[in-house]
Amino acid sequence: MGPLALEDLIIAFAKLPGIGRVTAQRLALYVLKRPREEAELLAGALIAAKEQIDHCSTCHNFTQKGEELCEVCQDTRRDPQFLCVVAESSDVLALETSQIHSGVYHVLGGVLSPQDGILPEDLRIAALVERVREREVREVVLALNSSAEGDATAHYISQQLMPLTKVSGLARGLPVGADLDLADRVTLAHAFAGRSSL
Amino acid sequence: MGPLALEDLIIAFAKLPGIGRVTAQRLALYVLKRPREEAELLAGALIAAKEQIDHCSTCHNFTQKGEELCEVCQDTRRDPQFLCVVAESSDVLALETSQIHSGVYHVLGGVLSPQDGILPEDLRIAALVERVREREVREVVLALNSSAEGDATAHYISQQLMPLTKVSGLARGLPVGADLDLADRVTLAHAFAGRSSL
Repeated sequence: MGPLALEDLIIAFAKLPGIGRVTAQRLALYVLKRPREEAELLAGALIAAKEQIDHCSTCHNFTQKGEELCEVCQDTRRDPQFLCVVAESSDVLALETSQIHSGVYHVLGGVLSPQDGILPEDLRIAALVERVREREVREVVLALNSSAEGDATAHYISQQLMPLTKVSGLARGLPVGADLDLADRVTLAHAFAGRSSL
Repeated sequence: MGPLALEDLIIAFAKLPGIGRVTAQRLALYVLKRPREEAELLAGALIAAKEQIDHCSTCHNFTQKGEELCEVCQDTRRDPQFLCVVAESSDVLALETSQIHSGVYHVLGGVLSPQDGILPEDLRIAALVERVREREVREVVLALNSSAEGDATAHYISQQLMPLTKVSGLARGLPVGADLDLADRVTLAHAFAGRSSL
């Protein structure tokens, strides 16, 4: 079925999420038709992303290698006492795209999932509690996926933080079972604006 | 909006056909989450495809660099007197995936399009006529897109080949306006089986 290098490229594309064999073939043939520079651009961007992306020392959001703090933590206009807790760095990107949070973030690095062996000590929860106490955080919004694990994580964290600050969760504007980083802007904005005290 | 290397990767993905900003962001975040080896695999496959893919000296189908003939032309079980004419090398891949042609191919390198400056001498039409004459080809199937340009090209070529051999076109099983290389296997098989004399 065609030369090996073409088949290899189709297989590599088909490993990406949501890309089936037919789409992968279409992408590979497109790459072959286009100038070499375009293939090099994507190849270079792939390597650069893996090499140059690091995490913020404060919130664990994505950051360019060599920068200790991410763009949000560096931004003096952001309210450091208004903290939004998310599971993954990709969730920060979703919230920032929607521009609905005026404070800063705290990335947990996942959600509690005892059956997968993910316990509180595997997430950045202790660092969160310390940060809330030290920085005198005024409010924490738990912006977690609307799933059993997300709910359990929100419940666990709210128990830890309740003595220290106001804790809220996203409004049930998120369709149940949906992933936060795939939500549309309006749904996400509603969920954020309608957050309720836990 | 996040570190530069991430934004660059999103932009590079979004240049691919059918990949919008949201999908590109999802793909980029997936790459960041996965091991470095996976990003290197895709990056390497992109470069290798551009470096190692060449064209068959007989039919201009894709071939691995260094191989003069493609897999189809090398295959002694294929009928060299039964010729399928396609516009692009990618069309060969579509037909081979469906395994509906027992003969060999001739890739034109495009279709006639006077308004875009693509004239008969810009396509491999003279080589086709020569090949049909020299190899005593028994039948030529013109498997071109079902578009104004595809039809005009089929008409032009059939005028050239009619004195030499039997010429047929694909049955109108292809939805009008559709691209050959995006057709499903059944549609393509019907169109091929129902080819009619021109």
